[in-house]
Amino acid sequence: MSTALADLKSRLGQIEDLKAAANVLSWDQETYMPPGGAEARAYQLSTLQTLAHEKFVADKTGELLNHAEEEVNGADPLSTDASLVRVTRRDYERDRKLPASLVSEISKTVSEAKEAWKKARAADDFDIFAPLLRRIVELNVEKAEAIGYEDEPYDALLDEYEPGMRTATVVDTFRDLRDDLVPIVDAIASSEQVDNAVLHGTYPIKQQKSFGQSVIRDLGYDFDRGREDVSAHPFTTSFSIGDVRLTTRYDESFFPAAFFSTLHEAGHGLYEQGIDPSLDRTPLADGTSLGMHESQSRLYENLVGRSRTFWSHYFDDLQNAFPEAVGDTDLDTFYRAINRVEPSLIRVESDEVTYNLHIMLRFELERGLIDGRIDVDDLPDLWREKMNDYLGVVPETDADGVLQDVHWSLGAIGYFPTYALGNLMSVQLMNTIREELSDVDGDLANGRFGPLLDWLRENVHEHGRKLTAPQLLERVTGEGLSADPWIEYVRSKFGDLYDLD
Amino acid sequence: MSTALADLKSRLGQIEDLKAAANVLSWDQETYMPPGGAEARAYQLSTLQTLAHEKFVADKTGELLNHAEEEVNGADPLSTDASLVRVTRRDYERDRKLPASLVSEISKTVSEAKEAWKKARAADDFDIFAPLLRRIVELNVEKAEAIGYEDEPYDALLDEYEPGMRTATVVDTFRDLRDDLVPIVDAIASSEQVDNAVLHGTYPIKQQKSFGQSVIRDLGYDFDRGREDVSAHPFTTSFSIGDVRLTTRYDESFFPAAFFSTLHEAGHGLYEQGIDPSLDRTPLADGTSLGMHESQSRLYENLVGRSRTFWSHYFDDLQNAFPEAVGDTDLDTFYRAINRVEPSLIRVESDEVTYNLHIMLRFELERGLIDGRIDVDDLPDLWREKMNDYLGVVPETDADGVLQDVHWSLGAIGYFPTYALGNLMSVQLMNTIREELSDVDGDLANGRFGPLLDWLRENVHEHGRKLTAPQLLERVTGEGLSADPWIEYVRSKFGDLYDLD
Repeated sequence: MSTALADLKSRLGQIEDLKAAANVLSWDQETYMPPGGAEARAYQLSTLQTLAHEKFVADKTGELLNHAEEEVNGADPLSTDASLVRVTRRDYERDRKLPASLVSEISKTVSEAKEAWKKARAADDFDIFAPLLRRIVELNVEKAEAIGYEDEPYDALLDEYEPGMRTATVVDTFRDLRDDLVPIVDAIASSEQVDNAVLHGTYPIKQQKSFGQSVIRDLGYDFDRGREDVSAHPFTTSFSIGDVRLTTRYDESFFPAAFFSTLHEAGHGLYEQGIDPSLDRTPLADGTSLGMHESQSRLYENLVGRSRTFWSHYFDDLQNAFPEAVGDTDLDTFYRAINRVEPSLIRVESDEVTYNLHIMLRFELERGLIDGRIDVDDLPDLWREKMNDYLGVVPETDADGVLQDVHWSLGAIGYFPTYALGNLMSVQLMNTIREELSDVDGDLANGRFGPLLDWLRENVHEHGRKLTAPQLLERVTGEGLSADPWIEYVRSKFGDLYDLD
Repeated sequence: MSTALADLKSRLGQIEDLKAAANVLSWDQETYMPPGGAEARAYQLSTLQTLAHEKFVADKTGELLNHAEEEVNGADPLSTDASLVRVTRRDYERDRKLPASLVSEISKTVSEAKEAWKKARAADDFDIFAPLLRRIVELNVEKAEAIGYEDEPYDALLDEYEPGMRTATVVDTFRDLRDDLVPIVDAIASSEQVDNAVLHGTYPIKQQKSFGQSVIRDLGYDFDRGREDVSAHPFTTSFSIGDVRLTTRYDESFFPAAFFSTLHEAGHGLYEQGIDPSLDRTPLADGTSLGMHESQSRLYENLVGRSRTFWSHYFDDLQNAFPEAVGDTDLDTFYRAINRVEPSLIRVESDEVTYNLHIMLRFELERGLIDGRIDVDDLPDLWREKMNDYLGVVPETDADGVLQDVHWSLGAIGYFPTYALGNLMSVQLMNTIREELSDVDGDLANGRFGPLLDWLRENVHEHGRKLTAPQLLERVTGEGLSADPWIEYVRSKFGDLYDLD
């Protein structure tokens, strides 16, 4: 017997297939596509996205949803069926509120904006990008008004990437974070700097690849349900729970570039591979928010991968893999090198400690753009001012300043804060893990990564989008979002490394 | 101003995008997809194909087509617009005649049949496959009846792969071919056999790859609009005129496996890369028939790649690339080795001369199945009988006999003859080329492949599907399909090689 729920699932399944196909095409575009394929690929991606969107916002979806809601009435809210209907309703209402004309205008503006941004960055000329950015801000304001919000328009934008999160919470959390973090960065800047020359030796790419892949296999990343390729910008993408792919890029003369990006992407990949297989081909088969996703990548990259414990297990293997570069180095020198803190200009190259300050700066600027307190033309100066306030360094060019990130040119406003939220949540989760798995550090020191992954699967991964990130965090840690645990972690780890008091 | 033609093009463009996306997903499935991706990939491909089909056979397409026909009324029939409307009408009428229930029944049967065929071949047990094959025959008969035909049901099936070709023409042509070819094969079988030991030396895969790719680059295959990867079964696929990809597979101890398959696939690839770019994203941007496509692959594989002229240019390079295997061999020994003729059991491993006999056998059997003269249960015996008649060899197992090819299990009846048609057309085309380009052999001997490719582009490739294969052949060669030129070519080349009189 066909129920509305079954019909809804079948319809959503086709929509998920279209989205997965678009993901395959995007992956191919970044990894193997020859240059001649670019023009047609843009049409193909646009068609897949358009058809997926049209099918989803169609009245038919709403009718099925209405009936399906009756059918799941009374079911356990955490059951797959009830969750599917609830999350689909949320997505549906949001997407239906966006007029087709606005969606198409955004899409058109964004494709011009990306080209303009590329030119502006290459020419170090913000004026080339400014008119497009102004239009993007206007369109995002329109979008926020169409979607609606309680406190401020930025809420509506943030909610796309971090459902259930409020701007006010981010503002409060970031204020706490900044107040504690800026003095720590200042103190580190006045301490004796760590020497990281060892990281700049010769690390043959073939060995980097096999070392990196063997480590993430140990962590639990399943190569029968994924693979790792090379792309200009590392990313993780999923075509199904059985096919979750990573990319990386190699730098023969700088070890951390590929290795820590591999751990980072593997953290994302483990999340996607760990979703309950019964959720496949439904809108639930995804990370619950970008922040929660980032908590998994940062947990593996930083809390595991940049810990002394982790390297106490892998340092011998590292020396065997790269005898020329690290054969004469000791564990402590290497550990200190990979944790060197240095206020710098570029977010994607920044260290564990200063990274969140880069994010806060962007959040403050884009929130100001959306609520009208900041004008696009003032961005370059404000950027320099805030870099000086938070990090004590000032870019000489806009290319190294306000033009460094692609995100705004893609139309993505509300995305940046999720990076910092991920960092904070990663430590909140890790503290709970340490309480519940008393020997987790002994495990890590002995290369036993199973218990950690099992815990993450049971508590985070397998639920997919059944719980929002705030719900999941509260349920697992018993607390809401907080900067304190992360600050404590940084104080302890880097206080030790830099001899702070 | 939006015209019906413009709206039709836009609709067909989306359909082409969906098909291209399916091609990307299939390519990925055969090259890079991890095993865990298989289940979801089947759903994704099915969704893309279903949506493309639904969109194409919708009433809306018919309405636009009606109006577009009025708009192009009086235009040059070879203009892009007139051709687009004409070819779309042909496809539309054909696809509309297939009831959705039949399409879905074929799709369901085929997925069972492929599994059954795999099992049957592994177990060498035709009975496992027979019931599914019987059902496939029945469904193909239903399909032929739904589509309609003038002379016999097989016409309707053949027309899918070779539009405009009639079964009667194939029957006549194959009769001529068989009458002349069987005695030639007999004569070769009683001659002194050529020694091909040189081909079984050690050919390192890395060098095979660079040698093969450098040769097809010389032929004109554009790596900025394509690439070559490895798959279990070599194929060519196109995602747009700017992205036409080949695959191959390597055997370190048998040179011809990868090399001639690379030339073969490059021949297909050159056809696709040579289509007029203004046809991209329309149904005209494809080879006009499987036979014409095969004529291009066979022309480069056999008429160019297995000629003495070709190797007089490349033999030095070959010796430099594989000094261990061919350093002590001379050109003549190598040339004879790659042209060795030997009646054998397996079609895909057969030589240039005997290949067509394998095809004829299959054509006669499948035509008999469709018109009811042959019963599925009689196939294994008939196979052995015909192998003995045509080739003088008899398979000991059905796995090496009637179960060797995948095609029938895919539901494809009417496909096989196009392989032989391609062989015949390749020589008909080459004879015309020799008349029109008087120095083509001098060009080939000096590695100048441009004039040949320019001729093929102008006369074959660029038209896409504007002309049917019979129309194109007539227009270019002034003649209809004929076996005589191919027979003459074989008599001359192999008469010389095997000292026949």
